[in-house]
Amino acid sequence: MLSKSQSKLITSLYQKKYRNKHQLFIVEGIKAVNEFLNSDFNLHALFCTSDFTHRLSDEYVDIVSDAELKKISSLKNPNEVLALFQIPEIKPIDSSRFTLVLDGINDPGNLGTIIRLCDWFGVTQLVCSKDTVDCFNPKVVQATMGSLARVEIQYTDIIKFLSKVDLPIYTAMMDGENVYQKTLEKEAILVMGNEANGISDDVLKLITQKISIPRFGDLQQTESLNVATATAILLSEFKR
Amino acid sequence: MLSKSQSKLITSLYQKKYRNKHQLFIVEGIKAVNEFLNSDFNLHALFCTSDFTHRLSDEYVDIVSDAELKKISSLKNPNEVLALFQIPEIKPIDSSRFTLVLDGINDPGNLGTIIRLCDWFGVTQLVCSKDTVDCFNPKVVQATMGSLARVEIQYTDIIKFLSKVDLPIYTAMMDGENVYQKTLEKEAILVMGNEANGISDDVLKLITQKISIPRFGDLQQTESLNVATATAILLSEFKR
Repeated sequence: MLSKSQSKLITSLYQKKYRNKHQLFIVEGIKAVNEFLNSDFNLHALFCTSDFTHRLSDEYVDIVSDAELKKISSLKNPNEVLALFQIPEIKPIDSSRFTLVLDGINDPGNLGTIIRLCDWFGVTQLVCSKDTVDCFNPKVVQATMGSLARVEIQYTDIIKFLSKVDLPIYTAMMDGENVYQKTLEKEAILVMGNEANGISDDVLKLITQKISIPRFGDLQQTESLNVATATAILLSEFKR
Repeated sequence: MLSKSQSKLITSLYQKKYRNKHQLFIVEGIKAVNEFLNSDFNLHALFCTSDFTHRLSDEYVDIVSDAELKKISSLKNPNEVLALFQIPEIKPIDSSRFTLVLDGINDPGNLGTIIRLCDWFGVTQLVCSKDTVDCFNPKVVQATMGSLARVEIQYTDIIKFLSKVDLPIYTAMMDGENVYQKTLEKEAILVMGNEANGISDDVLKLITQKISIPRFGDLQQTESLNVATATAILLSEFKR
């Protein structure tokens, strides 16, 4: 049974301001919920239509009907379980290790893909500008497929952060050096910019190394790579 | 003014069987339509709300109202123009050059991203299994941002195709050789598989080289890379 106050709490968490207020976020589906249960995240409550409860203390679990689950879900076909987890406390940023910095990424799917890439390439620290889409946005959470549980993500003033670090600061620019011909530092910062506008001017001033992914197709055409695929190629180059 | 028969034709083209029947597909928005007008594709008809007509012969152009455009558009915010182009004639497949082969890609966004990657990396031939999502699906067309006009795409029996080629046939597998440590042939076939199931068993038998993108994160975790990001990294490795 789903109470009115539970239902109200859950649907409020689709909005960032209520996620911030309650310090909770939504995870949906058996696979994703299991990944978060197996992580360091703390469960707040779990709503399921079937026997998902075998290993959880009853205090966290409510059995709900299919109709109730549909009401609180953002998915077209809700998958048995929706859980609320606590947003973790922010750890201090470590300025001495390889860090990916995002400057104004808007699209939840792109951020989700980038978090998965960080997980794959062992990039454990992701620093986002304050105008980057919230990593606890339900669309991002679903797109990360659990990788969110393994990457530390910080939202901060990236100008301040970049001004203080001693590591080389790379970004991808059309007129940068060919990334295939350059030796990349293992300890470094890589900054990726907004889908439409790239990195902001204030960030650009702090860049120490401009790199580019060469285009092999028709050079007359100016179409750029999607930010998530460009990030895939560059993280691969840093780690290979 | 939009006639009833025009409106019926256009909305039918959101379905593959009518695209096949009429050999036409839809392109929306100023930027994308301009890219197709600048390509080898043949325009069939163009519907626009404003003065998009400066350089087109009147026989192709109909001025429509915002409401009419909204009615035939698949976009939330239609962008001035919707055009119908002819599906090009299929050229014979060239079995001697670098070719990307897709085995059962389902997601239009993934196919669109992969077509953009082909364009970027100068891969001019893309061969798709018959169960791969149609490249003239409007969602794919929008996701390619015009790259569709520069990559030759064929739908065929990929088992037959792969059985005949003399080039080495690569695919990405968890137990493949580390792609960073392997010398890749310049003239080759790269096969990428379905989002959930990978490549099919019959295709697997024809693979001559299994490669893998090493995972640098926590090896206990089995999450895989998204097929579009994996394709990005592998095309970069073949071309670098």
